[in-house]
Amino acid sequence: MKQTKIVLSEKEIPKQWYNIMADMPNLPKPPLHPGTQQPIGPDDLSAIFPMALIEQEVSQERWIDIPEEVLDIYSLWRPAPLYRAHRLEKALGTPAKIYYKYEGVSPAGSHKPNTSIPQAFYNKKAGINKIATETGAGQWGCSMALAGSLFGLDVTVYMVKVSYNQKPYRRIMMETWGSAVHPSPSLLTQTGKKALDDDPDNPGSLGLAISEAVEDAATHDDTNYALGSVLNHVCLHQTIIGLEAKKQMEIAGDYPDIVIGCCGGGSNLAGIGFPYVQDKIAGKDVRVIAVEPASCPTLTKGDFRYDFGDVAGLTPYMMMYTLGHNFIPPGIHAGGLRYHADSQLVCQLYHDGLIEAKAYHQLTVFEAALQFANTESIIPAPETAHAIKAAIDEALICKEEGKEKTILFNLSGHGYFDLQAYTDYKEGKLSDYEYPEEKIKEALSQLPIIK
Amino acid sequence: MKQTKIVLSEKEIPKQWYNIMADMPNLPKPPLHPGTQQPIGPDDLSAIFPMALIEQEVSQERWIDIPEEVLDIYSLWRPAPLYRAHRLEKALGTPAKIYYKYEGVSPAGSHKPNTSIPQAFYNKKAGINKIATETGAGQWGCSMALAGSLFGLDVTVYMVKVSYNQKPYRRIMMETWGSAVHPSPSLLTQTGKKALDDDPDNPGSLGLAISEAVEDAATHDDTNYALGSVLNHVCLHQTIIGLEAKKQMEIAGDYPDIVIGCCGGGSNLAGIGFPYVQDKIAGKDVRVIAVEPASCPTLTKGDFRYDFGDVAGLTPYMMMYTLGHNFIPPGIHAGGLRYHADSQLVCQLYHDGLIEAKAYHQLTVFEAALQFANTESIIPAPETAHAIKAAIDEALICKEEGKEKTILFNLSGHGYFDLQAYTDYKEGKLSDYEYPEEKIKEALSQLPIIK
Repeated sequence: MKQTKIVLSEKEIPKQWYNIMADMPNLPKPPLHPGTQQPIGPDDLSAIFPMALIEQEVSQERWIDIPEEVLDIYSLWRPAPLYRAHRLEKALGTPAKIYYKYEGVSPAGSHKPNTSIPQAFYNKKAGINKIATETGAGQWGCSMALAGSLFGLDVTVYMVKVSYNQKPYRRIMMETWGSAVHPSPSLLTQTGKKALDDDPDNPGSLGLAISEAVEDAATHDDTNYALGSVLNHVCLHQTIIGLEAKKQMEIAGDYPDIVIGCCGGGSNLAGIGFPYVQDKIAGKDVRVIAVEPASCPTLTKGDFRYDFGDVAGLTPYMMMYTLGHNFIPPGIHAGGLRYHADSQLVCQLYHDGLIEAKAYHQLTVFEAALQFANTESIIPAPETAHAIKAAIDEALICKEEGKEKTILFNLSGHGYFDLQAYTDYKEGKLSDYEYPEEKIKEALSQLPIIK
Repeated sequence: MKQTKIVLSEKEIPKQWYNIMADMPNLPKPPLHPGTQQPIGPDDLSAIFPMALIEQEVSQERWIDIPEEVLDIYSLWRPAPLYRAHRLEKALGTPAKIYYKYEGVSPAGSHKPNTSIPQAFYNKKAGINKIATETGAGQWGCSMALAGSLFGLDVTVYMVKVSYNQKPYRRIMMETWGSAVHPSPSLLTQTGKKALDDDPDNPGSLGLAISEAVEDAATHDDTNYALGSVLNHVCLHQTIIGLEAKKQMEIAGDYPDIVIGCCGGGSNLAGIGFPYVQDKIAGKDVRVIAVEPASCPTLTKGDFRYDFGDVAGLTPYMMMYTLGHNFIPPGIHAGGLRYHADSQLVCQLYHDGLIEAKAYHQLTVFEAALQFANTESIIPAPETAHAIKAAIDEALICKEEGKEKTILFNLSGHGYFDLQAYTDYKEGKLSDYEYPEEKIKEALSQLPIIK
């Protein structure tokens, strides 16, 4: 029998996260205060983050110990399995070897708990009892709710109102784990009240929900804020994915020529990719590819410059590829990839040629998702399907060129909560959105110039 | 770090199923033809089942080889992990050790693919290209759809109309795996047409959907029928659960005093339990407990007698504990446990004192489910939560008596598609249904007397 999956025992869970800032040829330029435009320090962040996470945000230590209490929770689903996609390879008729790491085994269904768990742990340890956060499609909110349940933290989730109404299952999942979920805009914050004053029917947006959660945390002493992607410490926590995958690929007797992850805020790509970028920096021949939606083409079409992380301009300026913080991407189903910018670490590495990027339209992405579901059996999340599409494309290039390359991608989450997207696709209700060049130019032209 | 879960490599997947008919002190009385009331033979079944499955239905061989092609698919998610519920134990303050086997890791989210996969394989091998089946809540339909996708079989699923409308995600999942899903009653069968003639608004029932699927199979040469529980060969296939669990418990250095499974048609209980019943027959001190809903108390309140497996009386008479095939259980959320009878193997073993049974009302079951979700992190299916409730109760008895017993239960499926039930529970919309003694007496009084 051919080997299909490589599992590790829980003793083999990596005991440290990998911090790529120790190895980057160029560190990102420092984040700047949104008011003074001067580099921010730990004190600027301490109102909403515990010091342990602020330290991780700026640390240049290569290896950072994972606390015992975090490992203990990780072991509920980690190590995650690594699969060899024999059946997909056969369907494609490719000589390439395709592997995928499966993060959908977490109770919340994606890679997000890899960071919600340590974030909850460090907050609890710092004496914080309440976390405020936001969620768009619901993946992050569920992951934070899970972490809150396991560490005894009260979690308040501001959920974009349109999702709140459209995705009751995600809401119920959070409530089942004990979180309070409010449709955003809400009457609980000044930001929310103002938005509702202006328009009682405001459907909400991720930017607005972030502002509500940040305000909640900033105005309550016992409450901190938590973010599910973009930040350095989030990318750090996700490296457990790639570190496990490396061990498993070694057991399989293979090393990837190509490593692929979908890329919204960047933490998933960081998770599977950074441990391989480390090798690349050290001279190894490996390509790391970030895959984004053609309708929100941050890396492939954005500008590399300082911009805000949120719509309202409350966050620090960060040096990122950006489509402009006012850019509103079309309503594609891969909600987790609809972000105007990317992690500054991912952006710097892309700028330095250590990461590649590709963009795909959603129809071809769903076609790939269906092919995957009907060969490998797992129905992927629409975000994840972007990585699958790229992996299939690379495998088909191998077929054309007769090359037996090894491809590894991260299957970051399952699509159990996204099935409406599949039926919309099958019924021909989805369309590709043309790259809105004019809108991006307009959004970028509104940004302040930072020297 | 305490060990939380025990994983096996795919090389350690059991290579044979365990057939309890080799060891039962008393075999069930033979199934009888619904017309002649004479014992049925293989020919009576060959119109809708392939011969390999009919042979398994009657075999008394102790070990039956699992085909290589089935093992190949099993390895997509098997071996399933075994967990030690440290966090639940701590919350209960019990000296008992609680273990659970987790079958929700299958792509369909439950143990059901353990039998849909071999059923698809044997049908395909027999030259059958189409399977007709039914589904109530959707678990079985999804599992058969998955199997059809992987073996290239056309699967037609008759889905109880009320579920079809209420559970679109389950329907879409089946369609994503390529199955055709029809609300039942449908216009595709005589049974369906008649039902719609009588009442155009007929919401459907599992019994009716079974009749449609059986008619479809019986009236099309290239089409067979598949059933997701009750039958001997289904119980056989599910024993892979208990066989794996035995290996894992050995690695953990423990042997269960108590083995628990929820019980609707009986295949889940058979899966986790039969390999331990084998030990019990051989003299080992182990209790195996079937857990059922108090509103459909087949084992705890039913009669042991011949009855039909379906509402319409098309199936053979089988010797079972039954509430009467006309018994309509209340609409509890654990749809998979709403069956008027049980596997004849489970019933015979219960009759012979080798299996125990317990019944619980649904409010206490959901309370247990929430406690589990907030300690062990997995949100269980409502069916599965019955087993959790029983495990918690046994652990609390241990606490009272100061005994360090070892408890093992099967976490047969996750509740991702059942979240509405959780919100209904939290909002106080669920109630306990009193045991409808009169209705059961009435349903039983209508049964024909078989000598």
